[in-house]
Amino acid sequence: MKKVLLTSTALVAFAGAAAAEVSLSGWAEMGVIGGSDITSQFFNDVDVDFTLSGETDGGLTFGANVDLDEAGDNLGNETDDMGIDVFVSGEFGTVTLGDTDGALDWALTDPAGVGSPGTIADDETAHWGRQDTYLDGSYDGQILRYDYSYEDFGFAISIEQDDTSDYALDEQDRDAYDYLWAIGAKWSPELGAGLLKLGIGYQEGDFGEVGFGLTDQMVDDLSEIVADASEEDQDALSAIFGFRANSDEADELTVALGENTKVWGLSAAYEMDNGFSVGAVYSQWDGDNVEGDHWAIGAGYTFDAFTIHANYGEHSFEGDSGGELDTDGYGVALGYDLGGGLSILGGYGKSEYDIKVGDVDASDDFDTWSLGLSMSF
Amino acid sequence: MKKVLLTSTALVAFAGAAAAEVSLSGWAEMGVIGGSDITSQFFNDVDVDFTLSGETDGGLTFGANVDLDEAGDNLGNETDDMGIDVFVSGEFGTVTLGDTDGALDWALTDPAGVGSPGTIADDETAHWGRQDTYLDGSYDGQILRYDYSYEDFGFAISIEQDDTSDYALDEQDRDAYDYLWAIGAKWSPELGAGLLKLGIGYQEGDFGEVGFGLTDQMVDDLSEIVADASEEDQDALSAIFGFRANSDEADELTVALGENTKVWGLSAAYEMDNGFSVGAVYSQWDGDNVEGDHWAIGAGYTFDAFTIHANYGEHSFEGDSGGELDTDGYGVALGYDLGGGLSILGGYGKSEYDIKVGDVDASDDFDTWSLGLSMSF
Amino acid sequence: MKKVLLTSTALVAFAGAAAAEVSLSGWAEMGVIGGSDITSQFFNDVDVDFTLSGETDGGLTFGANVDLDEAGDNLGNETDDMGIDVFVSGEFGTVTLGDTDGALDWALTDPAGVGSPGTIADDETAHWGRQDTYLDGSYDGQILRYDYSYEDFGFAISIEQDDTSDYALDEQDRDAYDYLWAIGAKWSPELGAGLLKLGIGYQEGDFGEVGFGLTDQMVDDLSEIVADASEEDQDALSAIFGFRANSDEADELTVALGENTKVWGLSAAYEMDNGFSVGAVYSQWDGDNVEGDHWAIGAGYTFDAFTIHANYGEHSFEGDSGGELDTDGYGVALGYDLGGGLSILGGYGKSEYDIKVGDVDASDDFDTWSLGLSMSF
Repeated sequence: MKKVLLTSTALVAFAGAAAAEVSLSGWAEMGVIGGSDITSQFFNDVDVDFTLSGETDGGLTFGANVDLDEAGDNLGNETDDMGIDVFVSGEFGTVTLGDTDGALDWALTDPAGVGSPGTIADDETAHWGRQDTYLDGSYDGQILRYDYSYEDFGFAISIEQDDTSDYALDEQDRDAYDYLWAIGAKWSPELGAGLLKLGIGYQEGDFGEVGFGLTDQMVDDLSEIVADASEEDQDALSAIFGFRANSDEADELTVALGENTKVWGLSAAYEMDNGFSVGAVYSQWDGDNVEGDHWAIGAGYTFDAFTIHANYGEHSFEGDSGGELDTDGYGVALGYDLGGGLSILGGYGKSEYDIKVGDVDASDDFDTWSLGLSMSF
Repeated sequence: MKKVLLTSTALVAFAGAAAAEVSLSGWAEMGVIGGSDITSQFFNDVDVDFTLSGETDGGLTFGANVDLDEAGDNLGNETDDMGIDVFVSGEFGTVTLGDTDGALDWALTDPAGVGSPGTIADDETAHWGRQDTYLDGSYDGQILRYDYSYEDFGFAISIEQDDTSDYALDEQDRDAYDYLWAIGAKWSPELGAGLLKLGIGYQEGDFGEVGFGLTDQMVDDLSEIVADASEEDQDALSAIFGFRANSDEADELTVALGENTKVWGLSAAYEMDNGFSVGAVYSQWDGDNVEGDHWAIGAGYTFDAFTIHANYGEHSFEGDSGGELDTDGYGVALGYDLGGGLSILGGYGKSEYDIKVGDVDASDDFDTWSLGLSMSF
Repeated sequence: MKKVLLTSTALVAFAGAAAAEVSLSGWAEMGVIGGSDITSQFFNDVDVDFTLSGETDGGLTFGANVDLDEAGDNLGNETDDMGIDVFVSGEFGTVTLGDTDGALDWALTDPAGVGSPGTIADDETAHWGRQDTYLDGSYDGQILRYDYSYEDFGFAISIEQDDTSDYALDEQDRDAYDYLWAIGAKWSPELGAGLLKLGIGYQEGDFGEVGFGLTDQMVDDLSEIVADASEEDQDALSAIFGFRANSDEADELTVALGENTKVWGLSAAYEMDNGFSVGAVYSQWDGDNVEGDHWAIGAGYTFDAFTIHANYGEHSFEGDSGGELDTDGYGVALGYDLGGGLSILGGYGKSEYDIKVGDVDASDDFDTWSLGLSMSF
């Protein structure tokens, strides 16, 4: 819910010329969260969003988005992702630079968002069955995307650059990675009493990895299992799946896809006028070390003030020299809209993984839940 | 002085529906400060406050408060105190979560604020004779409070949770603390040509401590005294009063009240229509290691553009196995209102302590002052 | 381009009384940067500016300026420069405290800003031929300035204080430095079809230094040269020019002017109504260890939507016990105004230095460039 603050320039502008605006909006959340290895506890959050927008006499529009919680430390890191994006738009299309989606992610519909009311702690999207970044962020997360829309059709290309300096490359004794680039297309025709949304895209880079967050307890459990493994199996684990045995430092199970990483994906969703939505996505991943795939489905239904949503997905990765990692998970979100920007939201997310390398066969699961109020201003 | 920015939603809302607003206000200060061990020097400060507020069709109001100086690092720490609060309010009362007062502090009137114009560097409230947090913040400072008001009467209960994870508790080899909870009540009837304000409350938790900030010089002086003490006295000091001998790290004289800490308090204040205000507060503290009490009085008078205020208070703590800490202090604030949000403010604060443990008998004092302009926008 | 948000107080104020306002404005940039030892890469930046302003019934105006990127860590450091300034203004003149120019810098016109459209990465001002701080910031950067303007004439004095505590001075075994103070005067009469701007000023302090930033590669190159030097030359270098041999830590070539540092300067500029501007500045520096001077010239021309600008300058420093450092540089900026707050900006900056101490004679150069869009809101 964006509020347009009428600025003096804007007031003048209403008399006939171009306008420049700073819009303020915000949101807040309060509630309770819990789950595996998480003490059930209170949760609060708030943010203020600044939307800067303007238009030239010639009809170009331009602007930027920055949030209050990105202020301070982040602002000033101009050549990396600092949580903001800047754009310019015209008849030629739109160019966006900064914290924005790459063209593959831009094109695909995320089933975890189809008809979802959201949750206060992101339980329905943070599980291990969901994929929503693809290779974006493999370098510094600063993405340049060009996109163009014509009627029901949309098209985009994006690049992310390894901007390590020559000096630092010498120190690291490596060449700069090639651009991480992506291409994507969307088609969203009206079909019957609803909107069909089709997306397809491809992404390629010199380097890519996928990470799944672990709780402290899971790190401990996995460390024990790995410690009992043979040295050969330990080496295979650390080479491909990036979990360092006997170390509390690793709080992530990382799949190092290796060089020459390629991902292609497609998605379909259907949003019906009667409040029902459904979607599915599939992607295939291929790097020098690891190949794999991901699929997910999701559905939501809104009736009166109620909205319910559920999604499920699976990742499957296989090392070229052996070893497998399978992860899956599902998420549920329930919402009741009290009007005026206030909603009651409840959510649940469950994740499972199974890792097999040589004689090692480890699996674990965890869940998270949240219940509370969401406010938008 | 809050400014309501009329947002587009709000403009529509004026036509009859519920409104959602982002209000901006701010303040700034410039002046000179000084005191014991403080070089007399310039002082400037500024902040911008964002007030988010909304209302449902059914009459529930909700909102959040966040300041510019809490942006960045703080925002993102959703399960601790991150300097913000979120609330929802209706006929049932108000529920507030985050950086807010516990029910005891909520109920009691702070004599250091009675009829005070404030100061730019908080000299009149930062002295050692004042108490205004009680046990709030003993855990993570994230407080949930429910309060209800009916005519002159108000009532509140609050809890603060030890949300340490099971994993971390195992590492620390301890159980989670019980909730720190509090209850409070207010009665504010009109009496003669003024308003009487009575408050009473109780707070209880598994753990509690009170801290008094020391300057570097005071740390050095106290270290020398303690270094000359017997080993037995040094142990008693560090066990109860939390000052580590011969260490420059300690910049606080901490009273560790121990487990099963209980505080009850009551306050009375009278705000007269002629501009004169007076108030007093008393509280008794009791933990497994230490018991003590605190009392304070304050008064203020406003005539034309002038406001004067003074307050005095004393803390007295006694260790169950011997040892005493007495602290007292007073504060003075003078203000002249130039109108439009600009004031001239002068302040002074003086603190003293006396610590007796075995053969150790140490005392010291320090003061601070400030003079400058306060601006509100 | 400042936007005045009409606040509720302000709305009331329009009915006849004093007003208090919070104004919002902002800017954003997107483009590409590069240069010596800098990989050509994307660049984005954004900021939101809060302008707090008020007026008393008696006609005093007051206010403060704070930016979004100064929020968080900075705010709270009230006795240092925390990137904000607070002011009060009346018939007596204006008093400003905080992150503001000292009176010498205030009085002099910077040729690198004469008729310049600016650049997105400050290439035209960040080169080694430019000087725009003089001794400001030698202590903590918190500056108090009084300035007074009458018709074409302006006058200012400023001080910056060494507010190190007595305790810390004892630890550092030194006395507090005297105030760093400055005095400046401006005269800006209309002359022919243009505006003449003359400035003169003087600054004096107990301590002063000038620093020039080095890239990692330059640090390495200079380290090698210095490592081959005699021990005597190495000592001379580290004593006066503050570059530590064989250390990657030093990323600046620092000229330590020594105690009793004095700088005087004068400037002249002429802004013609036909869009042409030209300016020049000269300053002489003198400390117990080093003396030197700086001069620079700049010019700009605006025709239709185009603006071009160029500037050149030289620093020359000589150690009292031998040793010389010469730096020079130039900057170019090109702009095309698309209207509505959007501009295309291109910039280039080139820097050179030559350092001679004993048998050491080292020189190097580097450049930076940028091209992109600048947006103001």
